[in-house]
Amino acid sequence: MTKPETLASLGENEALKRTVSRLKKSENTIVGSGDDAAVVRTSNDQFVVTTDTMIEGNDFKTDWSSAFDLGWKAVATNISDVAAMGAKPTALVVALAVPKETEITWLEQFADGLQAAVTHFVPHAEIVGGDLAQAEQIVIAVTAHGDLEGRKPILRTGAKPGDILAVAGTLGQAACGLSLLQSGNVDAISAYDDWVNVQKRPMPPIQSGIEAVNATSMLDISDGLAKDAHRIAKASEVKLVISKQSLDGYCARLDDVADRLEVNSLDWVLFGGEDHSLLATFPEGAAIPRSFKPIGKVEAGQGVYLDSAALPERGWDSAKAH
Amino acid sequence: MTKPETLASLGENEALKRTVSRLKKSENTIVGSGDDAAVVRTSNDQFVVTTDTMIEGNDFKTDWSSAFDLGWKAVATNISDVAAMGAKPTALVVALAVPKETEITWLEQFADGLQAAVTHFVPHAEIVGGDLAQAEQIVIAVTAHGDLEGRKPILRTGAKPGDILAVAGTLGQAACGLSLLQSGNVDAISAYDDWVNVQKRPMPPIQSGIEAVNATSMLDISDGLAKDAHRIAKASEVKLVISKQSLDGYCARLDDVADRLEVNSLDWVLFGGEDHSLLATFPEGAAIPRSFKPIGKVEAGQGVYLDSAALPERGWDSAKAH
Repeated sequence: MTKPETLASLGENEALKRTVSRLKKSENTIVGSGDDAAVVRTSNDQFVVTTDTMIEGNDFKTDWSSAFDLGWKAVATNISDVAAMGAKPTALVVALAVPKETEITWLEQFADGLQAAVTHFVPHAEIVGGDLAQAEQIVIAVTAHGDLEGRKPILRTGAKPGDILAVAGTLGQAACGLSLLQSGNVDAISAYDDWVNVQKRPMPPIQSGIEAVNATSMLDISDGLAKDAHRIAKASEVKLVISKQSLDGYCARLDDVADRLEVNSLDWVLFGGEDHSLLATFPEGAAIPRSFKPIGKVEAGQGVYLDSAALPERGWDSAKAH
Repeated sequence: MTKPETLASLGENEALKRTVSRLKKSENTIVGSGDDAAVVRTSNDQFVVTTDTMIEGNDFKTDWSSAFDLGWKAVATNISDVAAMGAKPTALVVALAVPKETEITWLEQFADGLQAAVTHFVPHAEIVGGDLAQAEQIVIAVTAHGDLEGRKPILRTGAKPGDILAVAGTLGQAACGLSLLQSGNVDAISAYDDWVNVQKRPMPPIQSGIEAVNATSMLDISDGLAKDAHRIAKASEVKLVISKQSLDGYCARLDDVADRLEVNSLDWVLFGGEDHSLLATFPEGAAIPRSFKPIGKVEAGQGVYLDSAALPERGWDSAKAH
């Protein structure tokens, strides 16, 4: 049997070339990967940029997530931040560090996961650059770019008393999936693989962000509804009141698993991270895209409330959680 | 005595806030850090983007480099890739992962190093976003952006037979500095601290890249003159002939140290990485910026030659080097 090729046996440059060769070109890109830098087109004189990192052990485990899953998730979570500005994702760069004994097939599957997510969510976008290095644990740092196409960016600061608070995407499903994986209960993991998949291959509502042209504020719910609602409340200097009843539907979907794992589904919905849904506010009476579900309202004041109860600023902080 | 604050004691978000507060704003930035993404101005409908990673143990040692040094180097090496396209660096995002026991003062000094390099090289630019996470070793992933201001990007593919080959910046000094550090010879390190400083706080000729408007090809010499010359030769399908005599000046500056460490200074000049100088080709007779020194010529054919001797494609590949 021949030994499988690894990062160490092939060298950084050759391994990078093999990985990059699996990615597709886009017509928005003026100069793609392979030079000192890439050149990307925008429709006007500005671009949107965001960066985020996923670290083995803290943000994922290779026992649970395949190379393909990780590539998918790295793209999905970053373009979600672009969409949360109201921008269309256009181009990404990916810096990957892996242990030297990592097999080239792992790198290829990671690239396939990156490309699959790009093709699924933003087929006109391209991974225009990357870097491959050696580290003790896997580190994935993605920077994503977007085009506002002449629209104003939608910030966290614009919520006004009287606005409607609304969510696009799932709530609590990624946390439910994480709890299933952590339970080690093989039967439950298999029975509820939909939630496990939300955790491993998130499905952020990218198009909803682009369509939210009337939103007065918006963000990507990465650290949980409660914690991210507090971010809007603080940035906009307003009070957010979430209707508990409006969350019933989100909870009901998770109740079966919650019963089985003996937890409260509302905890997942309020405090669970990584759904990468969108939380936004819209002026009362304005058109709200169909994919957004109203869950509350904006009032004068401060803090976040679930009906009349103050909601703690609790959620996902990976550096403290481990 | 109170315990020093660390990433673990403060949490990711608070630590990030403290670090980011040390960075300066720029008028080119429409939306800076603090939202889901930043919004950056360009002078026309395109932008330049590049990413690179520095990893503890492979690319640096904390015994040799301070937090300030690492911040400086992370900015300098990335904006060098932007300048190598002929673009003006405008905005950066920085993803940093550090062990959880890392002190907040280390993070603050790292931020000071980032800002010092921005202020030195590109005072109109801004660090518009970042991410802070926990890892077993320090990982620094920077993505840098630039504005071509209407100029065409200068690629590796445009060198033509008859062109002049030229260098802006130092050659071999970073490798000399690395050898000094590796020697552990405290007296030598102190006597030749200029070369050590090139290794720790590189001084890429950013302005030279922006001024090289006539260049037919250009790249950042990160992996050594020989290896990067091969990249231009391959991409442009030409032969590069470097005049050995033209390298005498670069060697002469290093001969004292080379003698002391019993190595050949020409090896540093040809094969040493991390000077982050610029290698470019210019049409014969065209105006060459003063900061570029001619070192050879472009001919029909292939490969890279030092006078009449073929120069091996040898240099710096961090994944193989360790």
